[in-house]
Amino acid sequence: MTHPVPFPHMARAVELAKAAAQDGEVPVGAVVVKDGRVVGEGANAPRSHKDPTAHAEIIAMRAAAKALGDERLTGCDLWVTLEPCAMCAGAIAHARISRLYYAADDPKGGAVDNGPRLFTQPTVHHQPEVYGGIMATEAAAILREFFGERR
Amino acid sequence: MTHPVPFPHMARAVELAKAAAQDGEVPVGAVVVKDGRVVGEGANAPRSHKDPTAHAEIIAMRAAAKALGDERLTGCDLWVTLEPCAMCAGAIAHARISRLYYAADDPKGGAVDNGPRLFTQPTVHHQPEVYGGIMATEAAAILREFFGERR
Repeated sequence: MTHPVPFPHMARAVELAKAAAQDGEVPVGAVVVKDGRVVGEGANAPRSHKDPTAHAEIIAMRAAAKALGDERLTGCDLWVTLEPCAMCAGAIAHARISRLYYAADDPKGGAVDNGPRLFTQPTVHHQPEVYGGIMATEAAAILREFFGERR
Repeated sequence: MTHPVPFPHMARAVELAKAAAQDGEVPVGAVVVKDGRVVGEGANAPRSHKDPTAHAEIIAMRAAAKALGDERLTGCDLWVTLEPCAMCAGAIAHARISRLYYAADDPKGGAVDNGPRLFTQPTVHHQPEVYGGIMATEAAAILREFFGERR
């Protein structure tokens, strides 16, 4: 008997993270979902795109906004394999993402539950619901393997 | 006798901000400079680009990184008419911008000298030199005029 994947959107984000690693990029993947349908995807790509902003979340949210024809992603969920950094958390707030699901936490670069904890700042203009730790073991293992191989 | 513009790069950023206002966008402009030469420009455009990340700084840094063929803008200066938000400050750190010059401060959305003051956070991985208040009166007047007209 086959069991369904419990978190299919995070499973897809993990696939995108693995694809990033194969391209020599820090393995992070992200998916934007609206009404159960994927409307944007991203694999981390700053090196290959020559773009300091080309994190998985930014690529996925830009794709979703383009697909939906709206700068705001109200009602959309973002699934990402690593806790977002300050740049991505800021973009999540600008995009009005409704729910943020992330896998591994990032004590060094994270800005949601670590560092500046941006969504708790008094000046934040939008605060998504946040759910961390989903498939964290798998996502963290991919990152560890990537950095282990590079040392 | 004609005097040279004391801050030609900020004057150019102000021009870009005015162009943004004419397109119905919040008037913010930005310029990336390397060795005295402009390598990237941006006018705020989230509405027209249907892109929540399309702030002037992001557009200018993406253009500069593409022009220079490098995800890092080491040795580059960023001139922008408004204090950067968390998204843009995070991108400035990722891009390794050397010097940040901004005009008007932004108590509500700024993340450099207001709000989370990102470059002072212990987890920040790069800290540019920051110079605020350059041509602030002119940049703030353009913003005030824009929001005044919209009220």
